[in-house]
Amino acid sequence: MSRLPDCQTLLLELHGGVLHITLNRPDSRNAMSLQMVAELRAVLAAIRDDRTVRALVLSGAGGHFCAGGDIKDMANARAQGAEAYRELNRAFGALLEQAQHTPQVLITVLQGAVLGGGFGLACVSDIALADHQAQFGLPETSLGLIPAQIAPFVVQRIGLTETRRLALTAARFDGAEAQRVGLVHFVEQDAQALAERLDEVLQQVLRCAPEANAMTKKLLLASAGQPSSDLLDEAAQWFSAAVTGPEGVEGTMAFVQKRKPGWA
Amino acid sequence: MSRLPDCQTLLLELHGGVLHITLNRPDSRNAMSLQMVAELRAVLAAIRDDRTVRALVLSGAGGHFCAGGDIKDMANARAQGAEAYRELNRAFGALLEQAQHTPQVLITVLQGAVLGGGFGLACVSDIALADHQAQFGLPETSLGLIPAQIAPFVVQRIGLTETRRLALTAARFDGAEAQRVGLVHFVEQDAQALAERLDEVLQQVLRCAPEANAMTKKLLLASAGQPSSDLLDEAAQWFSAAVTGPEGVEGTMAFVQKRKPGWA
Amino acid sequence: MSRLPDCQTLLLELHGGVLHITLNRPDSRNAMSLQMVAELRAVLAAIRDDRTVRALVLSGAGGHFCAGGDIKDMANARAQGAEAYRELNRAFGALLEQAQHTPQVLITVLQGAVLGGGFGLACVSDIALADHQAQFGLPETSLGLIPAQIAPFVVQRIGLTETRRLALTAARFDGAEAQRVGLVHFVEQDAQALAERLDEVLQQVLRCAPEANAMTKKLLLASAGQPSSDLLDEAAQWFSAAVTGPEGVEGTMAFVQKRKPGWA
Repeated sequence: MSRLPDCQTLLLELHGGVLHITLNRPDSRNAMSLQMVAELRAVLAAIRDDRTVRALVLSGAGGHFCAGGDIKDMANARAQGAEAYRELNRAFGALLEQAQHTPQVLITVLQGAVLGGGFGLACVSDIALADHQAQFGLPETSLGLIPAQIAPFVVQRIGLTETRRLALTAARFDGAEAQRVGLVHFVEQDAQALAERLDEVLQQVLRCAPEANAMTKKLLLASAGQPSSDLLDEAAQWFSAAVTGPEGVEGTMAFVQKRKPGWA
Repeated sequence: MSRLPDCQTLLLELHGGVLHITLNRPDSRNAMSLQMVAELRAVLAAIRDDRTVRALVLSGAGGHFCAGGDIKDMANARAQGAEAYRELNRAFGALLEQAQHTPQVLITVLQGAVLGGGFGLACVSDIALADHQAQFGLPETSLGLIPAQIAPFVVQRIGLTETRRLALTAARFDGAEAQRVGLVHFVEQDAQALAERLDEVLQQVLRCAPEANAMTKKLLLASAGQPSSDLLDEAAQWFSAAVTGPEGVEGTMAFVQKRKPGWA
Repeated sequence: MSRLPDCQTLLLELHGGVLHITLNRPDSRNAMSLQMVAELRAVLAAIRDDRTVRALVLSGAGGHFCAGGDIKDMANARAQGAEAYRELNRAFGALLEQAQHTPQVLITVLQGAVLGGGFGLACVSDIALADHQAQFGLPETSLGLIPAQIAPFVVQRIGLTETRRLALTAARFDGAEAQRVGLVHFVEQDAQALAERLDEVLQQVLRCAPEANAMTKKLLLASAGQPSSDLLDEAAQWFSAAVTGPEGVEGTMAFVQKRKPGWA
C-alpha cells in the first residue's frame, strides 16, 4: 500500500480502494494555495503506480469546492515581481496536467464555489458530480486577469463554443447549466443525493479492472487533443504580463477595495 | 478612436464601446456579396488594435441575418471560369478566419435566414443569439455544391457528429434546434426578448477588461484545433470543381428554374 | 452498377440508390466475427466508387444491432497467442477506419444490444437512429479488457468528457441517453417510428447531389481530428497485452463462469 505524504491543507482518507481527498482550507473557501498545489501533486505522485487505489474522490470542506487562487500567494508574488507570477501560475497548470493523467479514476464532488482554479480541477476529472446550487465561473477577465492555465482545459472539457462565451463574459452559472454545457455528468438536489450518486458511481468503477481502466484512460487521453505544455508555458507568461499590467493592477485593487474597476 | 471605412453594404453604429454592424442588403436577404466581404474585412481591420471598441454586434437588416452567397457574383464568376470561383470562395473563408480572430467579442443576432455563408458567420461568433423562428441550414449539397469554406468552421463549432448529419442532408432547422446542437448560446421568442438578452450579454462583456478579454480569446483559439488555411485553400479548389462540374451546373440551373435537379 | 460480394454473415438489398446491409448472425446477437469484418470490408470496397449507391443503411437481424466481438474468434486467438489477438483487434479497427471514410452516407439503425464493436460502428455513422430501449455500453474494462480500437472513435464521436465516464464505469445506457451524450441523432419509441424516421432521412439524403455529398464528407473528416492509424496500431498491442494478462484471463473466465471477477 502506498505511503501517503503528510498534508496540512488536505484531509486524506483511504478505504475500500478509494482515496478521499478533501481540500481543507474552509476559511478561504479552499482557495488553491501554492502549498495545496504541492501537497496535491505529492499525493498523486505517491499513489501513481498503486493499482490498489482504484479511484480518487476530490471534494472541499465547509460547503465549497474551491474558490480559485490564494490571495496571500498573489500578494507575495507581487512583492517579488513578474517572474514569481509566472511560476505561481505555471505550478497550478502542472497540477492540472498531473491530475488529468493520473491513472486512477478521478471523481470531483462540486458544491458551493467552483471558480477559477476550482473550475480547472473539475475539468480534469473523469466523473464530475455537482450540487444544483454550486456556483461555477471564470471570473478572471473581470479582474483584469486571464484564465491562463485553466482555459486550455476548459476548451478541452466543454469545447470552444461554450468556453468563449463563459470566459469572455465572466458569467456565473449553477449545476444544471454546468451539466447542460457538458462540464459535469450529474447534478443533484442536495448532499444526500450527491452521496448516493457518488456511491453508485464508485460501485461502477470498482466493477472495472484496475489495470484495464488505467490503460483505457491513457488511450482516451491519447485520442483527444491534449492541452500542450508549450501553450501552458506561454500562457503563464501572458498571465504574468496581465497581472502586472495596468488592467491587472486596477482589477485586483478594485476587488480589494470592493469597487468597480475603471473599465466597467 | 478608430476611423471606420465608408460602406455601401453595411450600417455601422458605434456607441458605448460597442460597434453595431448591420448587413444591409435586405432585398437579397443580405446575401454575402464580394463587396460585403471586402467591407466587413475593412471594418475588422480598422478596429483591430482599438481596445476602446470592446464588442461587435453583427445582425441583418429586414428580418434576415444572411441567406448565403450572392447570385450576381456567382453569375459573374461563371462568365470568368473556374479560377474566379476559387477566388470568390476563398475570399469568404478569409473573412471567416479574420472574424474568428478579431480581438473584440463578436456577438451575432440571428433572425430569419441563416444559411450558407450566414451560417458560417454564426460559427465564428463568441456569443450567438437566435430567434426561435430563425431558419438555419447548409443547403449547398442540394444544389450540387459543397460548403467548402464553411464546413471546417461548422465542425469546429458543433463537432463532427452533428455537422455530418446537417451537411449531408441539407436539413433546415430552427433556433431551438440550433441551441440543442450547440451552434447558438441563447434562443429567444421575439425581437424584444432578443434585445433584452443582447443588453444583458453586453453588460457582462463590458464588466471584463478589454486587453484581458483579447488575450483570453487568443488563448482559447490557440487551445482549440483551428480550421487550417491549407485546408481552406484546398476546399476552394474543390468548390470550383463542384460548381463547374455536372452536378453544380445542373443544381444551380434547377434552382433558377425552380425545379428539382436530376438526382433528386 | 457495382457487383456485390457473396456474404454469409450479411444480408444485402439494394434499391433506389440505397444499399441496406443487415448484420445477420442473430443467434449471437450479431457478434462481430472476423468473417463479418471481412465481408463488411469487401462490401464497402465494392461500392466505393459507385455514386449510384447514395446511402448505406446498416442494421442488425433479430432485434439487436451488434453485441460486440465474437467469442469463438477470441477462443481461437487464445489458442494462437498474443499476436493473434493483436491482429484480430486491429482488423476491426481497420473496418472502422474504412466505414468512417466510405463516400456514401452511412446510416445506422440501432436496436437492442449496441455494445463494444457495435458501439464502434455506431460512432462512424453519418446519421444514427436509435430505439429508445436500445442498450449501449462499453463493457470492456469490466472484463479486464480495453476498448482498444473503439475508444478513439468514441472520443471523436461524443468528446473526451462523456467518453471517460462511460469507458471507466462500463455503464449501460439507453437511446435517450445516447442522444443526450451526442452519440445518436434521433431516438424513436418503436420500430414503426424508426422506419418512418429512416424514410425521412433517406429522402433528405437523396435530395443532395451524390458527388457533392462525397466531397463534403471528405471535407468534414479532414476538418475534424481523426483517430490516427498509429494510435490504433499501438492500441491493438495494448489490447493483446490486456487480454493475455492476469486481468483479461480472470475477466473472461469469470464471464464464462457467470461469476464476478476477483477485482469486483
